[in-house]
Amino acid sequence: MISKKMENMVKNGSAIRAMFEEGKKMAAKYGAENVYDFSLGNPSVEPPKEIEEAVTKVLSDYKPNYIHGYMLNAGYEEVREKIADSLNKRFGTAFAARNIIMTVGAAGGMNVIMKSLLNPGDEVVVFSPYFGEYRSYASNFDAKIVEISPDTTSFQPKLDEFEAKLTDKTRIVIVNSPNNPTGVVYSEDTIKKIAAILEKKQKEFGAPIYLLSDEPYRELAFDGVEVPYLTKYYNNTIVGYSFSKSLSLPGERIGYLVIPDEAEDSENVILAAGVATRILGFVNAPSLMQLVVSKCLDAKVDLEVYNRNRELLYNSLIEYGYECVKPEGAFYLFVKALEEDDKAFVAKAKEHRLLIVPGSTFGCAGYVRIAYCVDYDMIKRSLPEFKALAEEYK
Amino acid sequence: MISKKMENMVKNGSAIRAMFEEGKKMAAKYGAENVYDFSLGNPSVEPPKEIEEAVTKVLSDYKPNYIHGYMLNAGYEEVREKIADSLNKRFGTAFAARNIIMTVGAAGGMNVIMKSLLNPGDEVVVFSPYFGEYRSYASNFDAKIVEISPDTTSFQPKLDEFEAKLTDKTRIVIVNSPNNPTGVVYSEDTIKKIAAILEKKQKEFGAPIYLLSDEPYRELAFDGVEVPYLTKYYNNTIVGYSFSKSLSLPGERIGYLVIPDEAEDSENVILAAGVATRILGFVNAPSLMQLVVSKCLDAKVDLEVYNRNRELLYNSLIEYGYECVKPEGAFYLFVKALEEDDKAFVAKAKEHRLLIVPGSTFGCAGYVRIAYCVDYDMIKRSLPEFKALAEEYK
Repeated sequence: MISKKMENMVKNGSAIRAMFEEGKKMAAKYGAENVYDFSLGNPSVEPPKEIEEAVTKVLSDYKPNYIHGYMLNAGYEEVREKIADSLNKRFGTAFAARNIIMTVGAAGGMNVIMKSLLNPGDEVVVFSPYFGEYRSYASNFDAKIVEISPDTTSFQPKLDEFEAKLTDKTRIVIVNSPNNPTGVVYSEDTIKKIAAILEKKQKEFGAPIYLLSDEPYRELAFDGVEVPYLTKYYNNTIVGYSFSKSLSLPGERIGYLVIPDEAEDSENVILAAGVATRILGFVNAPSLMQLVVSKCLDAKVDLEVYNRNRELLYNSLIEYGYECVKPEGAFYLFVKALEEDDKAFVAKAKEHRLLIVPGSTFGCAGYVRIAYCVDYDMIKRSLPEFKALAEEYK
Repeated sequence: MISKKMENMVKNGSAIRAMFEEGKKMAAKYGAENVYDFSLGNPSVEPPKEIEEAVTKVLSDYKPNYIHGYMLNAGYEEVREKIADSLNKRFGTAFAARNIIMTVGAAGGMNVIMKSLLNPGDEVVVFSPYFGEYRSYASNFDAKIVEISPDTTSFQPKLDEFEAKLTDKTRIVIVNSPNNPTGVVYSEDTIKKIAAILEKKQKEFGAPIYLLSDEPYRELAFDGVEVPYLTKYYNNTIVGYSFSKSLSLPGERIGYLVIPDEAEDSENVILAAGVATRILGFVNAPSLMQLVVSKCLDAKVDLEVYNRNRELLYNSLIEYGYECVKPEGAFYLFVKALEEDDKAFVAKAKEHRLLIVPGSTFGCAGYVRIAYCVDYDMIKRSLPEFKALAEEYK
């Protein structure tokens, strides 16, 4: 009796659940320490100590009805002001509180902005490989996902194909850098080229194309690489941010949208985002956590932990003969499967008690995603299995 | 450039915002203590002391990555188990953790269940007056709201009209008792009659009709009145609960759905609700707050504060000549406007610095909603204005 749209999604949901159940069974059979789960993007690094301090401070400094009560759907004015100030200081932007909409994580923010902008039949352009949930978000509003095929030598966007696939139905282009699943960071040069193509095309079609920058991994960049702030390169940019990874708070569902004044029809888009926040059932981002993160805008998780994981796993896999573009951000390796069918390869990996995700989930068959936001010792223990797996294919 | 569906909603959103801004202007002009804002359902009673104690206990007892990390989309197993146990103890039900889906408040839960069940064109039946947001939620899934006209003598549901308006397109019937905006509680006898009609009609149409019990006000009942637990009267009942009012935590966005095993296709509905939670962008209910409420299931806000407000305001308004069914629950009075046009009456009230909401927002013109979840002293100060307002119409 469930809705038609949900039928397939529930089938997939059952598959994920089955995988999860199987993981638990494997742990029971082989011992938890002998099952190597690289399937989830659940941060292994602890939240910075500032979080707990901020919770305590908020509880002691504010009245309970303020901490836990309703505020504007867009969030507490003071929180949005602090976030705007912090962005302005970091990136030389000029945002005010009105440009910030607090959201239930980046996933909530993306649904809010899609609800605000998309009509049925509109197109949302994504660069493969991409976070598969974008498909569901677009489907929530009867919009169509248009994939740009991957450049598997660099996992940078294919700009010719991008330009060719923009149409008068294109309303949103999603950029996700540092990228899930590749860990690749788009350079300033790439961003400038994307912006130039969009400027040209929105003139050609006479309608704005919004660039939606999905940024849960912004703060997770290694080797001193710069992650450009996209509103500076293209006026119709909207940023979706999340504290899930930057402060290791994925369960708290806290993030924000930035809708700059420079974006076309910004006043209405801002109003629409506030209303969408309400009617999609979020109502507002969780109140205590809004106040908490506003006190932790300069706090950081210990990136060196992820970096150490990255170095160990990347270097080892290369040594065993795997192919992989070294990631500059996020906490994923996107590795070429050792046979054409990535799902078959994932099944083979499971025989080695290695749990990884097929690239086809991300619109890029023939690859697998390995999430290294895990215990360093688990990586060490898993290495002989990755080696044995490679040897099976030699 | 915003989506067509949002255009009207943004206009309404602007109206609410304008009212809010005008309230602020009035406060600046007349002094905050001389503006009587009865427009919002924002609990005035503090959260019980158990909440802060539970936050402290969770922070000290659990590891940070557990408190703030991802769990199953449906919520922590231990939280769902505690809620199921608590319901079973209170209502003699037999729920297990699997029947509970943690949600981002009741609004989140209602969107999750509508996404799970509704196809475009399906009908959602509501009893006027009703919480106006139901219209937006149904519209999110291209479903149609079917209103049952109000019985203004009692504000109990009109059962003949209800039976006549059920069709083979009816997928969901919403019951909200204690009711927003009337405060009326549906008796056990009424619930039994609704159940009998639904049983008959779903047999006639050969398809399940789900009764969705929207219960943010369940714990706010006065004079010892019983609020029946609906799953006991009708198998295809789904409950949407929120801690917003019961624990004065509306900003935290924490609630749950109950999907009983007895409901038709319950296994798939439960799976669909988990997937809908993810793809609508909630991902999961806020994690810290899940753990906190699970430790406060027996905690209560001080109902006597609302009761005192109710008695003072109700008795005074009746004395001044207003007509109103005395509410047995929630924290609203639904009062007959003193002229036919409720919006004109609301405007007239504003001249007395009384901010109230027109009944037409709730599908019941000619009435106004007065939210008494406010300071007792504000009610006292406002009484001469309510009296003067009534005298203008004599």
